[in-house]
Amino acid sequence: MPTPTGVGSDELRRVNLRAILQTVHTHGPTTRAVLTKQLGLNRSTIGGLTGELQSLGLVTEQTAVVGGRGRPSHLVVPCEDNVVVAVDVGVDRIAVALVGLGGQVLAGRNRGHQRGEHDVDHVVESVAQMVEETLAASSHSRCLGIGCAVPGAVRASDGLVRFAPNLGWYDEPFTELLAERLQRPVSTGNDANLGVLAEHVRGAAVGFSEAVYLSASVGIGGGFLVGGRPLTGVSGYAGEVGHMQVDSLGPTCRCGAVGCWETKVGENVLLRHAGRLPGGGPPAVAEVIEAARASDSRARTAVEEVAEWTGIGIRAIVNLFNPEVVVLGGCLAQVWRAAEPAVLDSFERSSLLSPRADTLIRPAGLGDDSPLLGAAELAFAPVLDRPQAVSRAG
Amino acid sequence: MPTPTGVGSDELRRVNLRAILQTVHTHGPTTRAVLTKQLGLNRSTIGGLTGELQSLGLVTEQTAVVGGRGRPSHLVVPCEDNVVVAVDVGVDRIAVALVGLGGQVLAGRNRGHQRGEHDVDHVVESVAQMVEETLAASSHSRCLGIGCAVPGAVRASDGLVRFAPNLGWYDEPFTELLAERLQRPVSTGNDANLGVLAEHVRGAAVGFSEAVYLSASVGIGGGFLVGGRPLTGVSGYAGEVGHMQVDSLGPTCRCGAVGCWETKVGENVLLRHAGRLPGGGPPAVAEVIEAARASDSRARTAVEEVAEWTGIGIRAIVNLFNPEVVVLGGCLAQVWRAAEPAVLDSFERSSLLSPRADTLIRPAGLGDDSPLLGAAELAFAPVLDRPQAVSRAG
Repeated sequence: MPTPTGVGSDELRRVNLRAILQTVHTHGPTTRAVLTKQLGLNRSTIGGLTGELQSLGLVTEQTAVVGGRGRPSHLVVPCEDNVVVAVDVGVDRIAVALVGLGGQVLAGRNRGHQRGEHDVDHVVESVAQMVEETLAASSHSRCLGIGCAVPGAVRASDGLVRFAPNLGWYDEPFTELLAERLQRPVSTGNDANLGVLAEHVRGAAVGFSEAVYLSASVGIGGGFLVGGRPLTGVSGYAGEVGHMQVDSLGPTCRCGAVGCWETKVGENVLLRHAGRLPGGGPPAVAEVIEAARASDSRARTAVEEVAEWTGIGIRAIVNLFNPEVVVLGGCLAQVWRAAEPAVLDSFERSSLLSPRADTLIRPAGLGDDSPLLGAAELAFAPVLDRPQAVSRAG
Repeated sequence: MPTPTGVGSDELRRVNLRAILQTVHTHGPTTRAVLTKQLGLNRSTIGGLTGELQSLGLVTEQTAVVGGRGRPSHLVVPCEDNVVVAVDVGVDRIAVALVGLGGQVLAGRNRGHQRGEHDVDHVVESVAQMVEETLAASSHSRCLGIGCAVPGAVRASDGLVRFAPNLGWYDEPFTELLAERLQRPVSTGNDANLGVLAEHVRGAAVGFSEAVYLSASVGIGGGFLVGGRPLTGVSGYAGEVGHMQVDSLGPTCRCGAVGCWETKVGENVLLRHAGRLPGGGPPAVAEVIEAARASDSRARTAVEEVAEWTGIGIRAIVNLFNPEVVVLGGCLAQVWRAAEPAVLDSFERSSLLSPRADTLIRPAGLGDDSPLLGAAELAFAPVLDRPQAVSRAG
């Protein structure tokens, strides 16, 4: 018999270090006893591995008495001195967060774009300043990288933003520019793709391997997990849900086509239906929803209208993907909370009952921070994958 | 260091037998020399494995001189005495084929449904008789199973047809009924899911791991490969492309909703637009296309109209999946061949250029037989996966 390609001891060590680091990063402080059981390794092996992670500065060990009796077990704690800076470039604002290994948000700041500031050089400079301020204000010793979420299609190979119509970006080398400006590693992903990742790790999609995250602000983003893996498509552009034509008589979309889903659903659509000025973002949407509750009939009609189109789009996606869970973010979560029956009514306006019976619909577990926290996960990914390669510097 | 979970020698043998059998099934007769190279095993190991497959009756070995010089190499040939019966239950007709290991179609028959014969007991009886006739007329010694394609959502766990609106089936235990009637193993899948599988193995999607198969007859079916694996969703119902709402003012669909894609695209839609009676199937569609070529302006408008809606649906799907290839079957292939520019015109009516640039659109490589040949692959799958478990009987 031939020998199959072997797993060498170096590779095995990497895989085991990774398993431990991912466990404590995802689930928080974990006893060696639990790690031993979970990983199916023996106690002394676990001790050797956690010792190595400790010497790499990635975890600390504390002595803890667990369960009140029995001998104390070492508690393996992710070391928050290792941080990443997560960035969410929205249409209205830039959000930045300092996130420690283990997923804790340690600090954050938001800044609105000025009018016309979507110019990529402006955005790169704003982001760079916010990242620098965030790191300067922090006492954490090692920055592992910068992760960015953008509302557009990002080329997987190099982080080029291929198109982000709501920022007016086409083929912008945002990632490269920011990495040069900061002299730090930068990774960029589509906001909704990062949203589904974060919701899967820490939010409303934990435990589901067939999951959809849909989030609307000005446009609509979609992120998908298929068999537990992110749906990327061949170049990383998959998940563009906003440009399904749903209404042949609908308005012309920024993309040039007519009646796209995102011309029927989103913050500004809702605001316009309610007779208000567009551009107010989530607070303005919340005001309309409050007015609808307080019997403002125009506001109520606007909410119901957007809820109906929300359900129509979700129906298409559920029929295509047969997911376990659809997680709603941004304006879709606001509309869902305000008008769940209206969303369900149009969602269920079809006799294709089966995928629907399988599917939970729920608002994001991480509020509006799913893309931001997904960007943090993107920045942590290289170290989580290869703990030994962590740089000693910061 | 701990020992990782080992691959035992039995399992290793199964994996290697599988690799050889799948290679010859997919690529046809293959020399031991090529197998040796491709599988990275040594010559004597390959000899032992092909010997075992021979004793299982799954391959034969022939002596061949390859390339004109050098010593002769044994040619490993899939043994066509092993057959499956593939069944495609369409809305208009039932197609049955006898397919040998290696993928050769050895015999086939078609039968139209009588009006009202969509009743599941009728269909089971028709299929059973066609299968029995096919096997009775064949001299092949071992039937490995029956694979069926149906135009509906099939529950992965037991082959229950959860809904097939164009047959009027809801929760029909078609698979169980047919297996009981024939006293043979029966597997059933969605026709388009099987279509993409067949196109991936032997058709227009060979070599593409991000692939879409879209086929229209009365309804539209969609089958998807994501990362080389079939998109199933949590229960096997994924890929229902026909019920995306594309036209808010469109006609009411069989599913109960309004303006679904399949109310705008399909055989009967085209026939009605052209002023003809629905129900004539592909030959009637071919007549309309021929009339359009011969300057029948009503026919031409009908073809252009369906071509436009075809492009609108493909655009949504390409934006969602960012595939390498979209393979068109049935009426969509006919329309594509007749009016490719009109399809592309509406497909490209949007500035989301990137996924499009990645995507080939082409007609099915297997004509209208993709679902039928995919059903054959479904029936071969258990033996291809576990050659040693092949039953000695037939």
